[in-house]
Amino acid sequence: MDFIYYLPVNLVFGRGTINSVGKITAQYGKKALVVTGKSSTKKTGLLHKTISLLDAAGVEFEIFDQISQNPLTTTVAQGAALAIQTNCDVILGLGGGSVMDAAKAIAFSVKNPGEISDYIFSVKQGNEALPIVLVPTTAGTGSEGNSFAVLTNPETKDKKSLRTNCIIAKASIIDPVLMTTMPKSMIASVGFDAFAHNMEAYLSKSAQPLTDMQAFYGMKLIADNLRRVYDHPDDLESWESVTLASTLGGMVINAAGCTAPHGMEHPASGLRDIVHGKGLAALTPEIVKRSWSYAPEKYAAISGLLGGKGAQDCADRITDLLLDLNLKITLGEQGVTANDVDWMTENCLKVSAPSMRNHPKEFSADEIKDIYHHCL
Amino acid sequence: MDFIYYLPVNLVFGRGTINSVGKITAQYGKKALVVTGKSSTKKTGLLHKTISLLDAAGVEFEIFDQISQNPLTTTVAQGAALAIQTNCDVILGLGGGSVMDAAKAIAFSVKNPGEISDYIFSVKQGNEALPIVLVPTTAGTGSEGNSFAVLTNPETKDKKSLRTNCIIAKASIIDPVLMTTMPKSMIASVGFDAFAHNMEAYLSKSAQPLTDMQAFYGMKLIADNLRRVYDHPDDLESWESVTLASTLGGMVINAAGCTAPHGMEHPASGLRDIVHGKGLAALTPEIVKRSWSYAPEKYAAISGLLGGKGAQDCADRITDLLLDLNLKITLGEQGVTANDVDWMTENCLKVSAPSMRNHPKEFSADEIKDIYHHCL
Repeated sequence: MDFIYYLPVNLVFGRGTINSVGKITAQYGKKALVVTGKSSTKKTGLLHKTISLLDAAGVEFEIFDQISQNPLTTTVAQGAALAIQTNCDVILGLGGGSVMDAAKAIAFSVKNPGEISDYIFSVKQGNEALPIVLVPTTAGTGSEGNSFAVLTNPETKDKKSLRTNCIIAKASIIDPVLMTTMPKSMIASVGFDAFAHNMEAYLSKSAQPLTDMQAFYGMKLIADNLRRVYDHPDDLESWESVTLASTLGGMVINAAGCTAPHGMEHPASGLRDIVHGKGLAALTPEIVKRSWSYAPEKYAAISGLLGGKGAQDCADRITDLLLDLNLKITLGEQGVTANDVDWMTENCLKVSAPSMRNHPKEFSADEIKDIYHHCL
Repeated sequence: MDFIYYLPVNLVFGRGTINSVGKITAQYGKKALVVTGKSSTKKTGLLHKTISLLDAAGVEFEIFDQISQNPLTTTVAQGAALAIQTNCDVILGLGGGSVMDAAKAIAFSVKNPGEISDYIFSVKQGNEALPIVLVPTTAGTGSEGNSFAVLTNPETKDKKSLRTNCIIAKASIIDPVLMTTMPKSMIASVGFDAFAHNMEAYLSKSAQPLTDMQAFYGMKLIADNLRRVYDHPDDLESWESVTLASTLGGMVINAAGCTAPHGMEHPASGLRDIVHGKGLAALTPEIVKRSWSYAPEKYAAISGLLGGKGAQDCADRITDLLLDLNLKITLGEQGVTANDVDWMTENCLKVSAPSMRNHPKEFSADEIKDIYHHCL
């Protein structure tokens, strides 16, 4: 039992905590760059509300609303340029995983000039960022609980995370009420992402006692509540559990890392811009089928949480969950073709090497190819 | 489900991690005040080893070895004066709970002049301290995992904790091997303290999902391993579990607080300088007997971990544990007399008001008196 555990998160959790966004942001800066997506926070009124609360707290702001799914390194560079040009001294990310990751990367880029891909691939090192406040509006990524920012380089199609403690949010305002406006298909895909984070950290060769404890609890919360919020998106008590599980999922992968499902999904969404949770849904059952015998006790525990009887039926119980969420889907249905498999395999071994090494069974290039083909 | 969770611990855990004490301390300062007790770290060779490692890492040092059980506010003032006089810029605490608490308070006092009792009782506020590195040599207090430093004022006999985030250690080096040199009676008393922290946080009205999860795991680790290390102090695998449980116990009380056992023990050890874990042993079973029906599910879960059948036998299962640890003892056997009860009751309601409010059953002054008398 040897480990290092350092994750200075500051979680402000609960219904209505969004009302403290102005007061909390004011603790970290005088002018905020509000990073958000192109539409949903406008439609729901959250952006308007946030701006009013910043105003009431005496925080000036600039809005950068150019973040889309699978955020690009080039978009991050634009956001950082705007933050510098307008003298923002705090970054407020308001949205789902893409927005939060972009907000974290913008805060980093303001302090670390040059191409961010160089920092992602450890060509350069940076230890400083603007202070970051995050407000998740989806329960999936858990970006509010870790030091990662996953970005896609549009030139190389590499989808890989920037990892540095300086982009851990100074405060994360986690309000389960904000989750109730998600469309059903998004509830399913991000919720499955949250489950995958907890499951993968639990299975990881880099797991440690504290991440095991958190990941097991996170999986249990999802197993007991995700179907409920999918069927009844107004059930706030269940949303509290799913939302907490999502944050836990983000926290556990910080130290334990991900394993093969995330490792193999990133090349697919990097190349074809598919929905991350749907990519995971396509790959995970097949990966579990080929892995359970390499960590039978842990897969049995996961299966047990999902109502299963043992490690050998873990993949089927995950498939049951996907069916209940209308998330049973193939990579082919999402636009990935057989021609993409060679590139994805090569890219997987490049961008996802640590995740693939963390997996209970280390797959060869041929095995990875075979799984991709099977999931088309 | 509303909570704030902020606890930026940096845990370096594992067998042999003590060997990194020089390198880690060097990250935070050039000259360390090594705070330790009067004898045990000298007898075991740990102080000598630590000094050599500081030396090898180029860290200068000064030694302050005046800490005794139930550390005094006056001793802390002496330590702070020495740190200032010798230009120390980092505090290294090497010892059990008393030493670590004193080290934290010294780091605070260097930056916050005046009587520390004023900060303890919130007459004054302080937000700054020298950086702190902690090396626990007992598995009980968990001080390496929180923002508390419990001190006794020799004039008023008030035993109460300084609480401020600035005294959370920058790094805690938690090496289970260091626990193997504890005498058996200390293994029992500090081990029971660790159990009490986890149990009280679990029962606290200020509990939150993340502390519940950690506290339950901490109790389980103690229930499964404390008897084993008491009988076989060389069993390192079991020590890993007990040591981790101790750190978890320190972490969970940071947010959830303690309840009646700690609340009622502090007046006893403040007045009569008794061993904290023995004071807890004298009080806890009787308190549980008078409390279990106010939180039956939680007491049933605790009982279950100890091999019991339900909430109503929780006190008996705790007594079983105490018997196995040769820790069944009364307050009277430790020198507390009937004449002390009125003072202890009044002091309890003064210094321990938050802990008493956190308890599942809020005891009146008469009930507190009655419990003290029963435990004499």
